[in-house]
Amino acid sequence: MTEKIAVLGAGSWGSVLAKVLVENGHEVALWSNSQAQVDELNQQHTNAKYLPDLIYPEALKATTDLKAAVKDAGTVLFVVPTKVIRLVAQQLIEVLEELGTKPLIVHASKGLELGSHKRISEVIAEEIPTKYRSGMVVLSGPSHAEEVARQDITLITAASEDLANAKKVQALFMNDYLRIYTNSDVVGVETGAAFKNVIAIGAGALHGLGYGDDAKAALMTRGLAEISRLGVSFGADPLTFIGLSGVGDLIVTCTSVHSRNWRAGDQLGQGKSLEDVIANMGMVIEGINTCKAAYELAQQKGIEMPITQAIYNVLYKQADIKAEIANLMQREGKTE
Amino acid sequence: MTEKIAVLGAGSWGSVLAKVLVENGHEVALWSNSQAQVDELNQQHTNAKYLPDLIYPEALKATTDLKAAVKDAGTVLFVVPTKVIRLVAQQLIEVLEELGTKPLIVHASKGLELGSHKRISEVIAEEIPTKYRSGMVVLSGPSHAEEVARQDITLITAASEDLANAKKVQALFMNDYLRIYTNSDVVGVETGAAFKNVIAIGAGALHGLGYGDDAKAALMTRGLAEISRLGVSFGADPLTFIGLSGVGDLIVTCTSVHSRNWRAGDQLGQGKSLEDVIANMGMVIEGINTCKAAYELAQQKGIEMPITQAIYNVLYKQADIKAEIANLMQREGKTE
Repeated sequence: MTEKIAVLGAGSWGSVLAKVLVENGHEVALWSNSQAQVDELNQQHTNAKYLPDLIYPEALKATTDLKAAVKDAGTVLFVVPTKVIRLVAQQLIEVLEELGTKPLIVHASKGLELGSHKRISEVIAEEIPTKYRSGMVVLSGPSHAEEVARQDITLITAASEDLANAKKVQALFMNDYLRIYTNSDVVGVETGAAFKNVIAIGAGALHGLGYGDDAKAALMTRGLAEISRLGVSFGADPLTFIGLSGVGDLIVTCTSVHSRNWRAGDQLGQGKSLEDVIANMGMVIEGINTCKAAYELAQQKGIEMPITQAIYNVLYKQADIKAEIANLMQREGKTE
Repeated sequence: MTEKIAVLGAGSWGSVLAKVLVENGHEVALWSNSQAQVDELNQQHTNAKYLPDLIYPEALKATTDLKAAVKDAGTVLFVVPTKVIRLVAQQLIEVLEELGTKPLIVHASKGLELGSHKRISEVIAEEIPTKYRSGMVVLSGPSHAEEVARQDITLITAASEDLANAKKVQALFMNDYLRIYTNSDVVGVETGAAFKNVIAIGAGALHGLGYGDDAKAALMTRGLAEISRLGVSFGADPLTFIGLSGVGDLIVTCTSVHSRNWRAGDQLGQGKSLEDVIANMGMVIEGINTCKAAYELAQQKGIEMPITQAIYNVLYKQADIKAEIANLMQREGKTE
């Protein structure tokens, strides 16, 4: 069954998920607050800032008009950076009140709200009361927009406390190259997706400093253990961390040149300043903010997170990255 | 405390572990059944067939005389290919009976015995009764001989039912660049180490066929789940599979050019015949035999292992690799 879907956010992942939905036969309205970007998408069918080589289907319609995008949409998909999730949700609720509709809300963003440390589905739920949504689903997993854009096989997770909603999202997105698994552990999927970006910065730093594959595998393994500990303290199922949204996403983020968080760590390891790294990337590096959140949460909860602590020291305390990483990798051997 | 250690097997990993032990101040006798290799090690301090660029320490002594190697050794380390483990254990017990000594037995091999499907520590235990050994420890984890050879940081696991023995091995091997964690789940460590080689062949095949990083991460994640299921059916602790000897070793084996099993899969994916791949490698590809064992065990125990099954079909049933992998990656989406 096809339906109208509003996709909020026209970055790499948002625009590619919109392309997937068009290819699956749905009517898609891709919302962006940039008129220039909307014009480029509608007229040249490109999104050059994000995916310079990709031509989008002509049936994909972009708009800056949130109300027009959301009108008649059975599903609204958030794919905006974490720091504007609340703002966009506040804009959306005004439109939903006006329209009187109750769409299924899906999000595919990865991070925690700065300051409050809330998960993205919590932020959206605070701004959009249940009477204005038929459910909430998180879409997450090992997925590079570049690869999904060229129809490479990708497996991701649709997580919802209500499995029927997860199955609905599975049906909307699933096709030959994008395979969707359902999961009911929203907390585990969201915390895994957020915290793994911190470990990716660490894995990139190792590479930039000249460490090898053994060290990278060790850091990823110990990193998975520490983000699982923190996730479990929020009520996540530990098994979620060995699924697609946990170890799967960790692997793809730590071992692929497409990952911004990994690239940021790599450049830091090579001796670039944090300011230069942020300036050069030109896109959001979610792991930088998430590291602060994870560090503060670990402190509050008394959870040992040595990798997160080391990255925090580098990002926020001007610690020397070489010394921090050397110290981290040479901690006393102990029982696993 | 330093002691004499006999290292049985002078391939890449055996010779590098011997080098580590020499650097840690121990007296090491490296045993090989090749006189030419022993002469090369003792005279040129090289082992060109395995690690062409490495110069070994002069204090490392190689020998073809098993009795001389084992005499006065407090520890005997097996690092021979799986298929000769039983044979070497049978040779060792004769020597131990003659010498009347009772060393600690350690092994660092990865696989299952062909036919019997027994774990390596089980095979050794059958041949060497408890009165001729003070304990049994398994050394395993994400480690490329090439990286340990150049003193890159590497974290591995020493597993034993008797944690005191694991700690003894930790003390023998631990230094600035090789960090040892102890673990008491021998079954989990050995099954993870063996079965991950099958998944590595699959990851290599994906690469050879042109799939991307998303597909690789998905296959590794689903692969970790299926090898965990099989390991747990033998009594392994599921948590072991998210440790260094599980996901850590899986990551390093599936994402590094040093891995023979990955390279074998890559070449199969590119369309080379199994015979050519084996002939070109010139070294043992443990995953080929382990795949047969894992497939047969999964059949016996009624455990679903779709990746292992697909690789088995390619290796042993002349199935078309392209069709098998496409079929595998497009299985129906379902609950994780």
